[in-house]
Amino acid sequence: MIAVLKHNTSDEQLKNLTDWLSAQGLGVHISRGNYQTVIGLIGDTAHVDEELLASLEMVDSVKRVTDPFKSANRKFHPEDSKIEVGNAAFGAGNFAVIAGPCSVESEEQVIAIAKAVKAAGATLLRGGAFKPRTSPYDFQGLKAEGIELLLKAKKETGLPIVTEIMNANHLPLFEDVDCIQVGARNMQNFELLKELGQTRKPILLKRGLANTIKEMLMSVEYIMAGGNENVILCERGIRTFDSAYTRNTLDLGAVAVLHELTHLPVVVDPSHATGASKYVKPMAMAAVAGGADGLMIEVHNDPAKALCDGAQSLTPEQFANTMTAVNAVRNAILDIE
Amino acid sequence: MIAVLKHNTSDEQLKNLTDWLSAQGLGVHISRGNYQTVIGLIGDTAHVDEELLASLEMVDSVKRVTDPFKSANRKFHPEDSKIEVGNAAFGAGNFAVIAGPCSVESEEQVIAIAKAVKAAGATLLRGGAFKPRTSPYDFQGLKAEGIELLLKAKKETGLPIVTEIMNANHLPLFEDVDCIQVGARNMQNFELLKELGQTRKPILLKRGLANTIKEMLMSVEYIMAGGNENVILCERGIRTFDSAYTRNTLDLGAVAVLHELTHLPVVVDPSHATGASKYVKPMAMAAVAGGADGLMIEVHNDPAKALCDGAQSLTPEQFANTMTAVNAVRNAILDIE
Amino acid sequence: MIAVLKHNTSDEQLKNLTDWLSAQGLGVHISRGNYQTVIGLIGDTAHVDEELLASLEMVDSVKRVTDPFKSANRKFHPEDSKIEVGNAAFGAGNFAVIAGPCSVESEEQVIAIAKAVKAAGATLLRGGAFKPRTSPYDFQGLKAEGIELLLKAKKETGLPIVTEIMNANHLPLFEDVDCIQVGARNMQNFELLKELGQTRKPILLKRGLANTIKEMLMSVEYIMAGGNENVILCERGIRTFDSAYTRNTLDLGAVAVLHELTHLPVVVDPSHATGASKYVKPMAMAAVAGGADGLMIEVHNDPAKALCDGAQSLTPEQFANTMTAVNAVRNAILDIE
Amino acid sequence: MIAVLKHNTSDEQLKNLTDWLSAQGLGVHISRGNYQTVIGLIGDTAHVDEELLASLEMVDSVKRVTDPFKSANRKFHPEDSKIEVGNAAFGAGNFAVIAGPCSVESEEQVIAIAKAVKAAGATLLRGGAFKPRTSPYDFQGLKAEGIELLLKAKKETGLPIVTEIMNANHLPLFEDVDCIQVGARNMQNFELLKELGQTRKPILLKRGLANTIKEMLMSVEYIMAGGNENVILCERGIRTFDSAYTRNTLDLGAVAVLHELTHLPVVVDPSHATGASKYVKPMAMAAVAGGADGLMIEVHNDPAKALCDGAQSLTPEQFANTMTAVNAVRNAILDIE
Repeated sequence: MIAVLKHNTSDEQLKNLTDWLSAQGLGVHISRGNYQTVIGLIGDTAHVDEELLASLEMVDSVKRVTDPFKSANRKFHPEDSKIEVGNAAFGAGNFAVIAGPCSVESEEQVIAIAKAVKAAGATLLRGGAFKPRTSPYDFQGLKAEGIELLLKAKKETGLPIVTEIMNANHLPLFEDVDCIQVGARNMQNFELLKELGQTRKPILLKRGLANTIKEMLMSVEYIMAGGNENVILCERGIRTFDSAYTRNTLDLGAVAVLHELTHLPVVVDPSHATGASKYVKPMAMAAVAGGADGLMIEVHNDPAKALCDGAQSLTPEQFANTMTAVNAVRNAILDIE
Repeated sequence: MIAVLKHNTSDEQLKNLTDWLSAQGLGVHISRGNYQTVIGLIGDTAHVDEELLASLEMVDSVKRVTDPFKSANRKFHPEDSKIEVGNAAFGAGNFAVIAGPCSVESEEQVIAIAKAVKAAGATLLRGGAFKPRTSPYDFQGLKAEGIELLLKAKKETGLPIVTEIMNANHLPLFEDVDCIQVGARNMQNFELLKELGQTRKPILLKRGLANTIKEMLMSVEYIMAGGNENVILCERGIRTFDSAYTRNTLDLGAVAVLHELTHLPVVVDPSHATGASKYVKPMAMAAVAGGADGLMIEVHNDPAKALCDGAQSLTPEQFANTMTAVNAVRNAILDIE
Repeated sequence: MIAVLKHNTSDEQLKNLTDWLSAQGLGVHISRGNYQTVIGLIGDTAHVDEELLASLEMVDSVKRVTDPFKSANRKFHPEDSKIEVGNAAFGAGNFAVIAGPCSVESEEQVIAIAKAVKAAGATLLRGGAFKPRTSPYDFQGLKAEGIELLLKAKKETGLPIVTEIMNANHLPLFEDVDCIQVGARNMQNFELLKELGQTRKPILLKRGLANTIKEMLMSVEYIMAGGNENVILCERGIRTFDSAYTRNTLDLGAVAVLHELTHLPVVVDPSHATGASKYVKPMAMAAVAGGADGLMIEVHNDPAKALCDGAQSLTPEQFANTMTAVNAVRNAILDIE
Repeated sequence: MIAVLKHNTSDEQLKNLTDWLSAQGLGVHISRGNYQTVIGLIGDTAHVDEELLASLEMVDSVKRVTDPFKSANRKFHPEDSKIEVGNAAFGAGNFAVIAGPCSVESEEQVIAIAKAVKAAGATLLRGGAFKPRTSPYDFQGLKAEGIELLLKAKKETGLPIVTEIMNANHLPLFEDVDCIQVGARNMQNFELLKELGQTRKPILLKRGLANTIKEMLMSVEYIMAGGNENVILCERGIRTFDSAYTRNTLDLGAVAVLHELTHLPVVVDPSHATGASKYVKPMAMAAVAGGADGLMIEVHNDPAKALCDGAQSLTPEQFANTMTAVNAVRNAILDIE
């Protein structure tokens, strides 16, 4: 870590600062220039509070030379991690597709969708039992019953299941869930992350609406610091100045960046990223071509209401068609490598 | 609520849609145009899932005519609400200043700061006991002990106390806390908001880093729907494309907008909004001139480490100086009205 | 266009409004509701000033039912447009790759790169002669001489050339240029766009750093309203809250959205979008899989300075490798269709 | 300037880099650490291309220790600059208010408004003659005739006039204009800025919708490098993720930051920042309390069309009322200092 000090820093202030840093067990290397003095911190700076240091009167700015995230850092773990969820796997050359309804609504619905997505090539089933909704008046999910229905669909199809948790107190209900999802709004719910770090379940961590890539890796650190190394990252679109046509902005560059920074697998959710079924197929294809280790796609099934054809969710037919395209792109890439 | 349908919507699709809406207890008014058909929904549309409706294939776009938030809505409650916290009050002409350290560190520290800020005119004491930190390696607060120390400072000075909650399971520890703060990262932790709705404590709800004003009012709805009407809003800076000089961007326009949309009081936190002590005073002055019902300012006190002079926190002297300026601006405004 | 009026709008205000709208040649359809009155404007609303209407005291909000852009609108021109530049073409099934150096530096440099990119499969040559730089102290390009060097490279290789204009007064220098680029910072330089509308040259219009898709299509309208229908759009990354690892955020969703809204071809520039050569290949592959009609990639060639290996620009070898991958993805997609 | 090199940088690469930097006349200071090597550049680094350096393969990141902007830098010019426009002045304790219509429409209109705003305390008259509009179909201004009408209003009232330029070719028309405005969309129209640097007219430079504070100061550098030191900065709102209630987000923190970084005066435009007349008064008050050296406010006058009451523009009565409040806040501040 490097701190650039202000021009007018006195010798006394400098001494105060270096004493304080030394007391934290850090070596300090000072370079005095004509305009500014630069100090370099040597040792384990992951524990240094960067914001506090930057906020000191005498400090102009601070720059981390080493990353503050350790467990997820590719520098210390150069090989890709393979994260297994039931008989599916993500990363290290493994690719898997999670598909299913936005919300679990009934046994009939979830089993029908599970069968349909399995037939089209999905290897995991998703479905919302606990739903985070902006409005308290919107449907909040079937909760415990929703998880039971997912487990029935798992029994019927063999697909491992992925579902979202919103409250650590609900963990006992997730005992048979194969992979626990942390939603975008909870990416920095540190209390929840700590609890999930105590489990050994695979965690699918979604990027927050306006969280940086670095913050996402620090949230992973909360989970991994507890001993749970089974983390899958998920890019699901970020919030930008333009939401007129897509609900969020899919940041596919984040996939490439994450592959450089961390050994963990990265999944893309084109359904939430775009919020419109018509854009799911091209963005799923783009994600695979851009290096994603998996996809998460919403699929619904409701013959009674032709109405919903066109929601963020695909019909089983649209999903099958998307899978054909995704597989073609993936095969083309495997051929090059 | 108005939905604009696509040009090529068939009569059958239109019938499906209106049937579905009618089944939700809504009246439907249809205007067919040359290019598009517009349908108006009549009745209680707060329960209509706007996103679902917008995502239908046949729907071009949806517009809410009435706001989805009810309890906080000024339309149904034109008078300003006055929220009392101990002997302090916010809103309806009442103004109060919350001041104190970022983190509670020791009895000596918190009592010294409490006395200093009271002397300068603060009417509430803040201090972090549970601290949400981006890194699991950073200091996470004194927790239960921190709350005890705040209570000692309250006993010593009479100042009501404000401190942040991160986990609903900790609620028993907050029994004697006067006002519970929900931090920016938890603004959409709906599980926590629901639990706080079951209490009758004043809640200070901070705006999320990238949350809209409307989302903030929907989070209020989670609290008020539980029966707790004691909510104070807090603008604390949002995340934008420029964070080179201030950590966040203070959105003072939000204060004016919130005053129009809701009857609840709005407080401004210039310390977190700017992240730099040198900008706290001008932004505190601007906030008061712009109509804020209160301020929340970080003040530290650590004669041993002159080091921290210049953190986001003000020294007691800087705070007293800021209070003089704030009071002058406030008096000028009261004189005009 | 629909305007939602406020609850308390008086009959007189409503009459003033409808008179004013009728005077603009528009039909007005009024629906009075319990809470709000909605008026629908019938006729050519492209000329209605939406912002002015929305800003009226009595108006709660305004919604365009028809798009304000006409010439570029797919609704009025359902077939893809094919834009030819020399012997290359974009759109309607045609795909082309523009490659070349960031800045033209010397005859030797530009000819060597032109030959290299042609050999690897590029079909157009790019190179900056006039360079928009944030700092007046940075290299501003070789200007007229730069264009001459590009023309020499064209003569040598047969590749049509693309280069940026910053000032309409320079148009005479662009007489032999095959395609004129408008950079991101000039996307809303309406004076320049109008002048380009008077030419019949193909224009490559780059999206502004923080411009919406709709604003981009309105800028196209400035060019097409002048009679020049040869416009190619270019997504080159937008400005968001996170620029720690990529200079901008590539918005690939914009490609899918633009294909729906307009008949014009869309090109992607992964070099500027990411600002890092290591991310150019995966993003080029993603762009093609996501439906781009072409790519624009920076390639440099400077054996003397191994130094620049790793700039945003690719080496000729890296470019050839990227082209192999891009072609594999493109062939896979053509096979599916 | 400091560059942090990657762990695996070879001695040969390091030599190449230092040779290249030395060739640019810079001293190079190397500190080798266990994990990374840091090099410090000594000398005039304003001419070093930061982006190019950062993009080199061996470079992890680059940090400027000295600012790239010189002429506007307070470090080299600690005293506030006073910029005079006719008999009005901004900065160094001087405060002025620019008011007038969005667009100049007629002699009667502009003279009536000029008289009204003068009576209420405005010291400069603004009015758009050349109007940058998102749509080519919207009113583009009266152009040359608009400037003539402004000059008539100046003759009538004595108020110096401020109006926007969009094209350097129009400069002859601005000969008698007192202050030339550069609009947000042209903040990085470097060709225009260079031409304005050749004049000695006061320039009011508005911040671009998504431009950083540093970019704004670099644009100032384009003007000042030409010898024109009469620059007034204008904060007018930035583009963020939330535009539901205010068109832009007023960034008042930028005023405080600019006062620290530069000696030039800073004006705030609450009309464009909010886009709604109801928010102009509180934001004007906040701007003054936050340290603005002036205000720019839209005022309209159209007794015939009561219709426009409520646009972004204030009526003369609302403007007079706002001025009373602004003066009260300003007097309160002057009393404290």
